[in-house]
Amino acid sequence: MRSNETKIKKQTRLFGCGSVAQVTTTQNQKGAYLSINLGFALGVTFGIYVSRGVSGAHLNPAVSLSLCALGRHSWVKLPFYVFFQCLGAFLGAATVGLQYYEAIRWFSGGDLTVSGPTATAGIFCTFPAEYLSLWAGFVDQVIGTSALLLCVLALGDAGQGSIPAGVQPVLVGAVVMVIGVSMGSNCGYALNPARDFGPRLFVYAVGWGDEVFKAGGGWWWVPIVAPCVGALLGTLVYELMIEVHHHQPSLSTTSTCEEVSEAVGGSLEMEKPKQEELKQEKPA
Amino acid sequence: MRSNETKIKKQTRLFGCGSVAQVTTTQNQKGAYLSINLGFALGVTFGIYVSRGVSGAHLNPAVSLSLCALGRHSWVKLPFYVFFQCLGAFLGAATVGLQYYEAIRWFSGGDLTVSGPTATAGIFCTFPAEYLSLWAGFVDQVIGTSALLLCVLALGDAGQGSIPAGVQPVLVGAVVMVIGVSMGSNCGYALNPARDFGPRLFVYAVGWGDEVFKAGGGWWWVPIVAPCVGALLGTLVYELMIEVHHHQPSLSTTSTCEEVSEAVGGSLEMEKPKQEELKQEKPA
Amino acid sequence: MRSNETKIKKQTRLFGCGSVAQVTTTQNQKGAYLSINLGFALGVTFGIYVSRGVSGAHLNPAVSLSLCALGRHSWVKLPFYVFFQCLGAFLGAATVGLQYYEAIRWFSGGDLTVSGPTATAGIFCTFPAEYLSLWAGFVDQVIGTSALLLCVLALGDAGQGSIPAGVQPVLVGAVVMVIGVSMGSNCGYALNPARDFGPRLFVYAVGWGDEVFKAGGGWWWVPIVAPCVGALLGTLVYELMIEVHHHQPSLSTTSTCEEVSEAVGGSLEMEKPKQEELKQEKPA
Amino acid sequence: MRSNETKIKKQTRLFGCGSVAQVTTTQNQKGAYLSINLGFALGVTFGIYVSRGVSGAHLNPAVSLSLCALGRHSWVKLPFYVFFQCLGAFLGAATVGLQYYEAIRWFSGGDLTVSGPTATAGIFCTFPAEYLSLWAGFVDQVIGTSALLLCVLALGDAGQGSIPAGVQPVLVGAVVMVIGVSMGSNCGYALNPARDFGPRLFVYAVGWGDEVFKAGGGWWWVPIVAPCVGALLGTLVYELMIEVHHHQPSLSTTSTCEEVSEAVGGSLEMEKPKQEELKQEKPA
Repeated sequence: MRSNETKIKKQTRLFGCGSVAQVTTTQNQKGAYLSINLGFALGVTFGIYVSRGVSGAHLNPAVSLSLCALGRHSWVKLPFYVFFQCLGAFLGAATVGLQYYEAIRWFSGGDLTVSGPTATAGIFCTFPAEYLSLWAGFVDQVIGTSALLLCVLALGDAGQGSIPAGVQPVLVGAVVMVIGVSMGSNCGYALNPARDFGPRLFVYAVGWGDEVFKAGGGWWWVPIVAPCVGALLGTLVYELMIEVHHHQPSLSTTSTCEEVSEAVGGSLEMEKPKQEELKQEKPA
Repeated sequence: MRSNETKIKKQTRLFGCGSVAQVTTTQNQKGAYLSINLGFALGVTFGIYVSRGVSGAHLNPAVSLSLCALGRHSWVKLPFYVFFQCLGAFLGAATVGLQYYEAIRWFSGGDLTVSGPTATAGIFCTFPAEYLSLWAGFVDQVIGTSALLLCVLALGDAGQGSIPAGVQPVLVGAVVMVIGVSMGSNCGYALNPARDFGPRLFVYAVGWGDEVFKAGGGWWWVPIVAPCVGALLGTLVYELMIEVHHHQPSLSTTSTCEEVSEAVGGSLEMEKPKQEELKQEKPA
Repeated sequence: MRSNETKIKKQTRLFGCGSVAQVTTTQNQKGAYLSINLGFALGVTFGIYVSRGVSGAHLNPAVSLSLCALGRHSWVKLPFYVFFQCLGAFLGAATVGLQYYEAIRWFSGGDLTVSGPTATAGIFCTFPAEYLSLWAGFVDQVIGTSALLLCVLALGDAGQGSIPAGVQPVLVGAVVMVIGVSMGSNCGYALNPARDFGPRLFVYAVGWGDEVFKAGGGWWWVPIVAPCVGALLGTLVYELMIEVHHHQPSLSTTSTCEEVSEAVGGSLEMEKPKQEELKQEKPA
Repeated sequence: MRSNETKIKKQTRLFGCGSVAQVTTTQNQKGAYLSINLGFALGVTFGIYVSRGVSGAHLNPAVSLSLCALGRHSWVKLPFYVFFQCLGAFLGAATVGLQYYEAIRWFSGGDLTVSGPTATAGIFCTFPAEYLSLWAGFVDQVIGTSALLLCVLALGDAGQGSIPAGVQPVLVGAVVMVIGVSMGSNCGYALNPARDFGPRLFVYAVGWGDEVFKAGGGWWWVPIVAPCVGALLGTLVYELMIEVHHHQPSLSTTSTCEEVSEAVGGSLEMEKPKQEELKQEKPA
């Protein structure tokens, strides 16, 4: 089963990194920054559609971590999920590498570099803009991932009745779109440790060398750590918001934590429960 | 509760102003005017998704004012709503300022100006095009906000049955998109007093100086007053339209005002009544 | 009631022409051809949302004509509809003229011309590309409007059950989007006699002079006549398609014409019947 | 009936190739690469809306082949479907040729070429980028079509309950959009043998000559063979994924193949069964 999940996670990275490869190697002739935003947004959308029936659409270690913190996901399983999330991102990057092998060789003149006018490492993983310090990049990723979680949790919560089932993956993609459009220029909106680290390992392994870890003042760990901090922060903010809301009209006495995690489940593991319900209804 | 509402209103401004920051500081390398349109449109969409369960998605003082005029919203509460709407926009601008601090310093060479080739105040609040007189700008904002209200009220009205619940925030975002695409070049489609005044206070406070109030011939009050006039005008036009319609087929004798306000509620405070219905249905 | 309908039709033109005004007067600084496509597409979408409860969203004389040909709409009322459709487009153009008055004066240096580098008549009505003959333009408009009708009738037909109510205006907008993206460069996809003739009268009246009728070899009548021919052709093709389909599995013996017109009604006059159903259900 | 199906298939090609014609002949003045992505995406969307009631939206021979392999579609009928799919694409290309006849003559100076600065054959069918070898292009098309099938099958599967009926054509269009944005620069994402071969025959027939077959080192067969291989590969991957999933929670013992084909039917032949159900319900 794990190997299948990995195949799915490949999908998201395939579209996202593919769009960067297309824009980079054609020097904006066949796309623009908006194409990259669309590639990552729709990549997430179809990554969820393809995987939600199989693994509950767990694509992002930072989100999985938040679900653990909410008591919704088992801490024991977390390392396995993270491993396969990274493996999936690695294989997605490898597929883009295969598909764009000749394009990258042609664009870069065969010289695989991390910086400079024909740099191509940025197709696969993120690097900070030249003006950005590590800490400013850290703050950027915390704000971005926190905004992601706030919106995704709200979509899952509203999903308890009012968002048409099946439309949520499109809306989650739209969240990624708006973040890319408004928070992408500093350091490329990784927002996802696996999405950044898996492909970084790939470019390291196939010839870009250890510059992919040294560049940007040792940037590589920021898109791993900061999204986890941001996801937890976003979850906390959302939980406080919900708590206040539910206490104010004093309609409910159930544990807020429970409610939030159900909301998350409504968004992220939507399919499974429903199929089980259907199974139960059929024999009855 | 108020502080939580404010957190939410921050969200919208965060995406909208963030997209302007990204396009400005990268000199159109990582985005285009369409990115800004998308940033504000999806910013409004997710602002509504995040806040509709908590505060009924009151994001715009001009819209709140119209609801008061329709008898749907309490005049007494209005000043509080407006205050927190402005505070939310202020904090949203502050977050963008934090996230783009180094980018703005790098782009502007550290010189925070309101006009000129490296002007950055326009990231946060609106200024008129050089050719625009105050009165032409006033008319522009009245037309724009009036079109906004006409469309939003129609979406809320149709929502009495025919627009799938949960899709309306996307359509409200699309209204903001089309206004940005067709009415954005004269003076930047503020359409919302809080969205403009909150961030303007922020840039005034943190170093751009009183030029943010003097620029454009004392432009600052136009995006506060004109949207209120436009919102009331749009509401009036819609009410007349509905009234004529409902009298013509002589199907209904209920107060038009009542109907319109229900329509608005259907759109803007959708969540609350539904949850109450659910509560009532469950025990029954 | 008529005057109210006119107010609504203004709306569509307002967004469409507004987006051209924005792109033209800012010389592509605040938009691109895609903005114009979006402006007209979403303009149609919200034109339908705003008017479907009032006048059944009759925005296009060529579509009204097709409905008459299908026996769905009264020939006697047709001239009134067409008159108010043109009046609405005229007023929409006037609003854009008001909103962009200073921008147009600034961009054109005060010289209102139909051709040349600072031409501004094209903001309001269509003109053919320099290489286009009248007959090639006629064929272009017939193909375009025929494709429009084929898609809109299909959406209305599928609407008999399978397209979520309330989403159709978005899909009709998407049809206008794809036509603008794929058939816009020859002569600007008018597709609608009122959309072109109303604004043309406006620019003629307020100072662009009779060049708006003489330009393009007397182009003005093509976007009036060709869309009517195209709409009838598209309707005919769709009707034949349906007829063959319904006869092949021999499931139905009802008049195909009747079915098609119901389909059209499902799409274009969706609201009215539903509201009546609701009225009847409530007392029952 | 066949002739009607052909009319429909024309539609998709009409919008897709039309958008390339518009961008090419206006030299990016009236569109950009994103317009082409949108043209093909929405072209597929409305191709499905228009044809799903008539022929079950079979637009792509590679997809039809996969359905045969799954036992869902008759092998005997396959050649007829493929023939009419190619004929439809041929006629679509002919319509674009008619609509853009003067534009192409003007842009190319009357010289119909396959390569060079005024090449116009690429409006109709795909050619590889100059750096691309045949085998790299083959791999590109296999990856692209495989991704297409994986997503489309997932949409059809989820369609067993959770995607609102009528929204699926939009999502299939979005799949084509994201593939165009992320896998379009190497050799133009044909993904469909008919979409490429039909128009190639058209340009060969009307004056571009046999260079359309010789160009790119004899490229013409790659977008015919590779999409078939990719479609079968994507179907296989999806089937394995489903199988593992359904065996893991051991909820179902029905043939996986059967389930997948139902899923596909849910997506691609959605209309027919539903209409039959309705017929049966009405008399009951």
